[in-house]
Amino acid sequence: MSDDHDELGPDECWELLRAHEFGRLAFSVVDELHITPINYAVDGEVLLFRTAAGTKLFGVELGGEVAFEIDEIGDDEATSVVVRGSARHLEEDEEHRAENVPLRPWVGSDKPNVVKIVPRAVTGRRFPLTRPWLRMRND
Amino acid sequence: MSDDHDELGPDECWELLRAHEFGRLAFSVVDELHITPINYAVDGEVLLFRTAAGTKLFGVELGGEVAFEIDEIGDDEATSVVVRGSARHLEEDEEHRAENVPLRPWVGSDKPNVVKIVPRAVTGRRFPLTRPWLRMRND
Repeated sequence: MSDDHDELGPDECWELLRAHEFGRLAFSVVDELHITPINYAVDGEVLLFRTAAGTKLFGVELGGEVAFEIDEIGDDEATSVVVRGSARHLEEDEEHRAENVPLRPWVGSDKPNVVKIVPRAVTGRRFPLTRPWLRMRND
Repeated sequence: MSDDHDELGPDECWELLRAHEFGRLAFSVVDELHITPINYAVDGEVLLFRTAAGTKLFGVELGGEVAFEIDEIGDDEATSVVVRGSARHLEEDEEHRAENVPLRPWVGSDKPNVVKIVPRAVTGRRFPLTRPWLRMRND
């Protein structure tokens, strides 16, 4: 949105990641870029989410590069946190991790596969918003 | 989020795209996937947004593949629209397009470059949300 922003520190980024449970995941399938909403949970320093077999997301080459974003838009400022890293299916000996975090399915369908996103970079930005038309409504 | 969803028709997708002005753009720079919030406007059947020189977004190989997403999360359902296509700088003879749409900069910085996203596919989904813990708060 702008270069006029404050960078958030790692602690604030993780605090926001822990406070949210909905974001958007960007990933590639062959040469195609996809972006999809997911609900997720933070477990230590990885993100976990569930997916069903048969989705594009399940078909993605796991271990490949993904980018994940959450944001908050207020009247005066916007905050965005981006996680870049790799996605991998949880190994069998890790599956208990999904039971120990509030990874609550938002939808009713069966999504038995748990994927973890292992961050390589976590960055956050806070933008002051100058949308004067919002304030004009109150004048 | 789920395969249990309704596909939105093209008209509904465009109606949502016109109603919003904030979304997230996924793009590649070399082999790196990025995702960033942008504010945008719909002009006919393309999306327009502004960006500053010196940003990663400006450096992206325009003409390349991008994916763009907007969403709405309610208590009972979530709606997400995804535009996949290519991004290109507006040509000089197109620059007037940015003046004719409500492409209002949300931030104060100078962002003279207007980029258009030319959709190749526009898809939308509506998910019923089953988050019982939200309803429990009202019980």
